[in-house]
Amino acid sequence: MAQTLSRRGLLLILSSPSGAGKSTLARKLMAWDPSIRFSVSATTRKPRPGEEDGREYYFRSHDDFKTLIRTGDMLEHAEVFGNFYGSPKAPVEAAMLAGRDTLFDIDWQGGQQIRNSSLGRDVVSIFILPPSIAELESRLRGRAQDSDEIIAGRMAKSRDEISHWAEYDYVIINHDIDHSFNELTAILQAERLKRDRQPDLSDFVRNLNREFEAR
Amino acid sequence: MAQTLSRRGLLLILSSPSGAGKSTLARKLMAWDPSIRFSVSATTRKPRPGEEDGREYYFRSHDDFKTLIRTGDMLEHAEVFGNFYGSPKAPVEAAMLAGRDTLFDIDWQGGQQIRNSSLGRDVVSIFILPPSIAELESRLRGRAQDSDEIIAGRMAKSRDEISHWAEYDYVIINHDIDHSFNELTAILQAERLKRDRQPDLSDFVRNLNREFEAR
Repeated sequence: MAQTLSRRGLLLILSSPSGAGKSTLARKLMAWDPSIRFSVSATTRKPRPGEEDGREYYFRSHDDFKTLIRTGDMLEHAEVFGNFYGSPKAPVEAAMLAGRDTLFDIDWQGGQQIRNSSLGRDVVSIFILPPSIAELESRLRGRAQDSDEIIAGRMAKSRDEISHWAEYDYVIINHDIDHSFNELTAILQAERLKRDRQPDLSDFVRNLNREFEAR
Repeated sequence: MAQTLSRRGLLLILSSPSGAGKSTLARKLMAWDPSIRFSVSATTRKPRPGEEDGREYYFRSHDDFKTLIRTGDMLEHAEVFGNFYGSPKAPVEAAMLAGRDTLFDIDWQGGQQIRNSSLGRDVVSIFILPPSIAELESRLRGRAQDSDEIIAGRMAKSRDEISHWAEYDYVIINHDIDHSFNELTAILQAERLKRDRQPDLSDFVRNLNREFEAR
């Protein structure tokens, strides 16, 4: 069924430790419903070769970024190793008003800030857990030839991330990517079917009543 | 993924005006997941030819029924044309404890009573709307050769039922039965993935942490 036009888009927050399958799920979800907008983060770090402004990140100067924070134009932000990262608010609000959902691939700190923001009541948050730590580590090692030290750092960060699973609305244990993807789309479908997310229903029922009266 | 054993089953309430497709959806859902238990109503009306005690209804005497109400053994009940109808509580509680969901095919009055019962926090309620009243009437007329008077009575009841759509968690407009069925299963899948409906997650994450520590 077509989405109703006046529907407010929702904010879909996907978090997980790195290696649990979050980015694959996000990519599949964007392909499944191209109306979903992916929230591109802004950052003060320098672009790497091949990165494009507005695709991987919005690249901003420190001064610009601080202004955006001060003026309330960042939905969430964090400082990591001297660089700022954050989610610009304006494109999210524009998507919401157009009835488009926005997908956030962010960590628990970003998720917490968005939930506590003025747009918090439109947040649907999903945490992806790995089936085991052995599996998580093997996925991390399989990706690249990183040193044990780098892997150890990622594993420590994963443990910290996992400790926040209980702040999320839904939890998916990613045993199998296709099964998990099916669960992810079920959550999105269900959230869109919630009565209070279908503002056009009142008009729809009003028309049914007119039909009753005209019989 | 297998359901966790300690999960408490939920109470899935499906309501709609007669002719909107509710019974077809209920039947398909039971076939889709045979672990779902259909809540068979109790009634004081006499069995019709072909009806079996415990299948269509639990047939009870007026005295027995009144006792069940008095002892709090009815989750909801109503009197219609001198006969009682209601949902026995014990089999629902037994299913819940066994981690099985129970499906209720009941009207808004029953739904309201169950939502306000001691089991209310485990209720997920879904209202099925017809695409139009013309379509609803044609489905009602297509079913049987009923008199215009009987049809008129059903349509009045439908209008009353529809007026309660806003008391439900989810609303599905049944344009197409396959599409609506897909939406219904999405709702059930999503509800089962809610963090607070997965009591075994705490243990699961505790085991992940043990794995971290053992590295």
